[in-house]
Amino acid sequence: MTRIRLGMVGGGKDAFIGGVHRIASRIDGRFDLVAGAFSSTPERSAESGAALGLDPARCYPSFAAMAEAEAAREDGIEAVSIVTPNHLHAEAAKAFLDRGIHVICDKPLAATPEQAETVRAAVAASDALFILTHNYTGYPMVRQARAMVAEGAVGRIRVVQVEYPQDWMTDPVETTGENKQAEWRTDPARSGAGGSVGDIGTHAYNLACFVTGLAAESLAADLQSFGPGRSLDDNAHVLLRFAGGARGMLWSSQVAPGNENALRLRVYGEKGGLEWAQEAPNALWFTPHGEASRLIRRGGGGAQEAANAVSRIPAGHPEGYLEAFATLYAEAADAIRAVQAGGDRDTAQALLPGIGDGMAGMSFIAACVASSRADAAWTRL
Amino acid sequence: MTRIRLGMVGGGKDAFIGGVHRIASRIDGRFDLVAGAFSSTPERSAESGAALGLDPARCYPSFAAMAEAEAAREDGIEAVSIVTPNHLHAEAAKAFLDRGIHVICDKPLAATPEQAETVRAAVAASDALFILTHNYTGYPMVRQARAMVAEGAVGRIRVVQVEYPQDWMTDPVETTGENKQAEWRTDPARSGAGGSVGDIGTHAYNLACFVTGLAAESLAADLQSFGPGRSLDDNAHVLLRFAGGARGMLWSSQVAPGNENALRLRVYGEKGGLEWAQEAPNALWFTPHGEASRLIRRGGGGAQEAANAVSRIPAGHPEGYLEAFATLYAEAADAIRAVQAGGDRDTAQALLPGIGDGMAGMSFIAACVASSRADAAWTRL
Amino acid sequence: MTRIRLGMVGGGKDAFIGGVHRIASRIDGRFDLVAGAFSSTPERSAESGAALGLDPARCYPSFAAMAEAEAAREDGIEAVSIVTPNHLHAEAAKAFLDRGIHVICDKPLAATPEQAETVRAAVAASDALFILTHNYTGYPMVRQARAMVAEGAVGRIRVVQVEYPQDWMTDPVETTGENKQAEWRTDPARSGAGGSVGDIGTHAYNLACFVTGLAAESLAADLQSFGPGRSLDDNAHVLLRFAGGARGMLWSSQVAPGNENALRLRVYGEKGGLEWAQEAPNALWFTPHGEASRLIRRGGGGAQEAANAVSRIPAGHPEGYLEAFATLYAEAADAIRAVQAGGDRDTAQALLPGIGDGMAGMSFIAACVASSRADAAWTRL
Amino acid sequence: MTRIRLGMVGGGKDAFIGGVHRIASRIDGRFDLVAGAFSSTPERSAESGAALGLDPARCYPSFAAMAEAEAAREDGIEAVSIVTPNHLHAEAAKAFLDRGIHVICDKPLAATPEQAETVRAAVAASDALFILTHNYTGYPMVRQARAMVAEGAVGRIRVVQVEYPQDWMTDPVETTGENKQAEWRTDPARSGAGGSVGDIGTHAYNLACFVTGLAAESLAADLQSFGPGRSLDDNAHVLLRFAGGARGMLWSSQVAPGNENALRLRVYGEKGGLEWAQEAPNALWFTPHGEASRLIRRGGGGAQEAANAVSRIPAGHPEGYLEAFATLYAEAADAIRAVQAGGDRDTAQALLPGIGDGMAGMSFIAACVASSRADAAWTRL
Repeated sequence: MTRIRLGMVGGGKDAFIGGVHRIASRIDGRFDLVAGAFSSTPERSAESGAALGLDPARCYPSFAAMAEAEAAREDGIEAVSIVTPNHLHAEAAKAFLDRGIHVICDKPLAATPEQAETVRAAVAASDALFILTHNYTGYPMVRQARAMVAEGAVGRIRVVQVEYPQDWMTDPVETTGENKQAEWRTDPARSGAGGSVGDIGTHAYNLACFVTGLAAESLAADLQSFGPGRSLDDNAHVLLRFAGGARGMLWSSQVAPGNENALRLRVYGEKGGLEWAQEAPNALWFTPHGEASRLIRRGGGGAQEAANAVSRIPAGHPEGYLEAFATLYAEAADAIRAVQAGGDRDTAQALLPGIGDGMAGMSFIAACVASSRADAAWTRL
Repeated sequence: MTRIRLGMVGGGKDAFIGGVHRIASRIDGRFDLVAGAFSSTPERSAESGAALGLDPARCYPSFAAMAEAEAAREDGIEAVSIVTPNHLHAEAAKAFLDRGIHVICDKPLAATPEQAETVRAAVAASDALFILTHNYTGYPMVRQARAMVAEGAVGRIRVVQVEYPQDWMTDPVETTGENKQAEWRTDPARSGAGGSVGDIGTHAYNLACFVTGLAAESLAADLQSFGPGRSLDDNAHVLLRFAGGARGMLWSSQVAPGNENALRLRVYGEKGGLEWAQEAPNALWFTPHGEASRLIRRGGGGAQEAANAVSRIPAGHPEGYLEAFATLYAEAADAIRAVQAGGDRDTAQALLPGIGDGMAGMSFIAACVASSRADAAWTRL
Repeated sequence: MTRIRLGMVGGGKDAFIGGVHRIASRIDGRFDLVAGAFSSTPERSAESGAALGLDPARCYPSFAAMAEAEAAREDGIEAVSIVTPNHLHAEAAKAFLDRGIHVICDKPLAATPEQAETVRAAVAASDALFILTHNYTGYPMVRQARAMVAEGAVGRIRVVQVEYPQDWMTDPVETTGENKQAEWRTDPARSGAGGSVGDIGTHAYNLACFVTGLAAESLAADLQSFGPGRSLDDNAHVLLRFAGGARGMLWSSQVAPGNENALRLRVYGEKGGLEWAQEAPNALWFTPHGEASRLIRRGGGGAQEAANAVSRIPAGHPEGYLEAFATLYAEAADAIRAVQAGGDRDTAQALLPGIGDGMAGMSFIAACVASSRADAAWTRL
Repeated sequence: MTRIRLGMVGGGKDAFIGGVHRIASRIDGRFDLVAGAFSSTPERSAESGAALGLDPARCYPSFAAMAEAEAAREDGIEAVSIVTPNHLHAEAAKAFLDRGIHVICDKPLAATPEQAETVRAAVAASDALFILTHNYTGYPMVRQARAMVAEGAVGRIRVVQVEYPQDWMTDPVETTGENKQAEWRTDPARSGAGGSVGDIGTHAYNLACFVTGLAAESLAADLQSFGPGRSLDDNAHVLLRFAGGARGMLWSSQVAPGNENALRLRVYGEKGGLEWAQEAPNALWFTPHGEASRLIRRGGGGAQEAANAVSRIPAGHPEGYLEAFATLYAEAADAIRAVQAGGDRDTAQALLPGIGDGMAGMSFIAACVASSRADAAWTRL
């Protein structure tokens, strides 16, 4: 099977998520990174490309130049990864989608509703795939949880508790001049209206929806900025009302000392409960009501097809963040090949998060911000 | 040291919490149960008393009879434990307080605000102690957490997450005719306006306040009744705003399969975080921001005076629910002896929950119910 | 039901295990402590008795005096708890057994094989019960594990791993003059030939045998004394061969920093595995081979009659060390009443550890010491 | 940086560890797999190569053919991964080492002492690197543990407890005809004299030595074969005596239901203790004696340079088995480039396991087998 030719926008030196995308694209050997516009300055872009061993001719000064040049090459890129700050997603995505190049884009979809709409329209007008890396959906036990809910293991859902606390912004790290991440993530111009809600709250919300198959109808949010001088929320408390009557709570925080990336989902239905935590991702707790709780381990006793399909190694050897991310890349490769072979785009995309998930995330952020401004009034999504 | 003569109201056969109070009163050998009005029927009260080896003459048909008779005896009871359903607390408490007999009362204070006011007034008019068994405050590591917060270990508090999920009412157990507990706890006439919020939400709220030293100023609550035909809430989602700017979430549930009594508190401040869970009560997690998390164990490395003072056995041997309950009884014994010796009542009561805590719990329930009825509108306490 | 009149030998001020026995005897309200010989000096014995509120006339200068005086009283003690250092168990036990007074004795049985034989003979010659407080057998989930093994839940047993690490003797605390416990436990004259092996290794061995129903046929032991100048072992590594072909490992240590009382048992058979740990005593892990692991919680989903029978409070409220100890006292009370009513002694004793367990413990210690002296040669028990 | 041209011996369809090596070699983008002798039959080797997208001309029928042809090419492989059953390691390793091609070899070194000696001699005669994939040494927190021990964090070591239980051979899976792994691993001709001891016991032993810096001087082993008709051990109990006086226990098992790959190391010294478990590999427990236990997390509070150097993603995102394996490949790439640039072989190899570790593993297996045959007699390594 030949590898898919991949380009990258963003992800130069000092970037975090670009490196993760590159590793994820290599793990299953389905992609070759052959081009990039890694930085906003041509020199740094060329430098980053050289460090990655790329042909200097394919290290571009801008995503626009890359889109044009690669689309013109016989051996041009088939897909592109967009790993810039949020406010640049939309324009870049449009440039490649318009040229029929498949897009793999980091979340959230965009910084503003207008930008999101730009992407939505570009996807609608293109035949290319648009894949949003809600990477937590790639964990074997998340797939397992989703399959169990769909099979009715917990019955009709009543309560959904999801949380994603971190602690890296407990101190005002964005003011030190040494944390680029913190800088753009606390800047409304680059991040959009959501702080913790946009960065990690969207992950939590997406995960809750992915596993339960439910969508929120309305929410009441109380966003706070505890960091001195910080304009975006660094802590968010959200009440959720789901279609069908389930209720939920969502908590995202970047100021909770002792929590690194403690994403955790609990789902309770009429017949049982499920619990998954990202920091111990190879385990899924399942309690059929009235029976002993069961620890379902990836690949081990009790696991099912949905989990096995995305496991690379045997039971007991922890797979983690990079593998979950790589699962999205591997499935993206399958989807790209399927579409190239004439397959239907939606069918090819299957479980992969796409523009719909991106728009849902944007609605979630907007509703949180609106609700919080209205003193936590219930707000429809 | 002679033992304190104790009476009991409620706690006959099939009762749960009465037995717990009796064990707790025996553990440190500070009380002797010598009288009781254990049931609403004289026969069953006598039967229960006989099973406990009491003098038949001191097994009364009603608390009123007991209050009168015991107050008249030279060797009458010095204190009484009230362990009836909520709606009977107030009248019984008043009967004993009016006669100068110290009262140890199960929580919540009462079923209605009017009843609560009755107790408040009786306490104000009496010299006797009124002690409310918010038993979770008796755990060594809860004492430790409180002491650490007071010393500034976590800095100014920003976020408080507290939850108390259970699963015992997932099915409509109150309709089976075999679960007396479920029956009265789902009956507004006997429980009051709060279901899960009154039964366990008040414990969660009290614990959060006890450890942080904060009180909520306002809350927004979304109460649900998932059990078919159930009129009181069996799940409650509450947003909290504390005096001083801290924000919080409180979740109580009786319909979360896989949770037995999963009371858990997390406190995050500018300098660090604390976490305690009732199901592993001998451990307290402490993370000074930027350092490794520390597992402080009762009596073990890192523990302090506040915890050691209420530990009975060496490190590594779990103390649990009964011991925490017994701590309240032991401290009640100390307080009673101090007051009998002429000491000041408030000083004697020290850390012991009292009428103030009881009134705060009633306000919490009332605010939750009012907020939920107003579609989770913010409601002042 | 009237309470059993209880005496105590040892357990004066500064003693640890005496206080535990007293609390355990009170929890279920089945005993009244009415007499004692608490210390080796008459003054301190009287002082301890006074602090406990005993009649001064029944605070004796020696166990011999107590045995004689109490046996002569109409209202003399029916049972006695022996909580002295090991070397005094035998003589004291004999004094009471010879007078028909039931004996509850702390483990291990004695300091030397000769002393052990003294007790064995006294038990054989008496009608009184001899109960050895291997308290870990009293935990609900230990009872559950035993019942599950007996029912074949794990199939024929292959491997038994048991360990009991502590850290309190990491430093030479016996030389500080402030740790009486450490002093007598490191003194062969008072402890016997086993250090960690006698103090906690016997608990581990007893637990393994109690749960599995197996007894070791031979062992190979490597005992070490890491503390400078320490003559008894503070760490023991033991290989075990059980009757029927199962193999095992036992580790006891008092010099393993980070371990408080980390007693832990794992049992593996042809059909499944079980795991229990004293520091989280309300949980039992069970894995039917090839299925998901199950977390069986005391009183909760999956638990059985054997566990429920010794639980005092509902699921989710941790019961711990004191309650397990109290279970032995409660069962002792039942046994004493049964024997007093003419019942058969062995039948009455049922699950309660007795002289057989005591002799087995002595054999275990002797075999460990002999094997270690022979460079870990296999030694028959 | 150009990638290193890599070949592979073994690792065709149905193989497990070959796929792991391939992923590990891709994660950091330092190797390109360009040639292979994947199977013992030419057809299957060609098939496997085709599935991997290799040039058919470089899919060889045997490792001998590959070694000769690749050594002759201008663009021949620079390194080779050997992932066959144990008995084929030696001959293959020699073929490549003799031609100056660097060897990355799966553990254990060989099936027999004679084969091991063949490799040792070939390494001595060659300038090429020999790297043995004791992959557990690649985990960030294992590196951290080693660094902490070296710095004296636990003081002089007294006790080492290491275990590696699995359950996949609880049933006689080698007789079903569907488990090739089980077949060769239970066959002395292909595995060598050690069963569980060779397969996973060597990992446990290597890990203990890597972290502590100690080597065992003698051991006493009790090996068992519980599976019916199984000739190699599926459970091993080993007592260890380390140089310098530390004592240890090692347990490996393939018949312990509920254990997937539960490799776990505990190290206790005069000043503190450390604990690491492969199934939660991003955490390291450290207890300075007398203080609270600390949970050191990869990349998080308390972690050091040794761990950070081999971490790819931020704290809180679990890295696992594949990443640890990839760390060895990345370090192998560095070592190969260093040697190619004229650097000293031993210096280049640094922390990477090599022929010395391989010989130590063989001695460990041989000593275990010899000791067990002598009824667990102490045996020098």
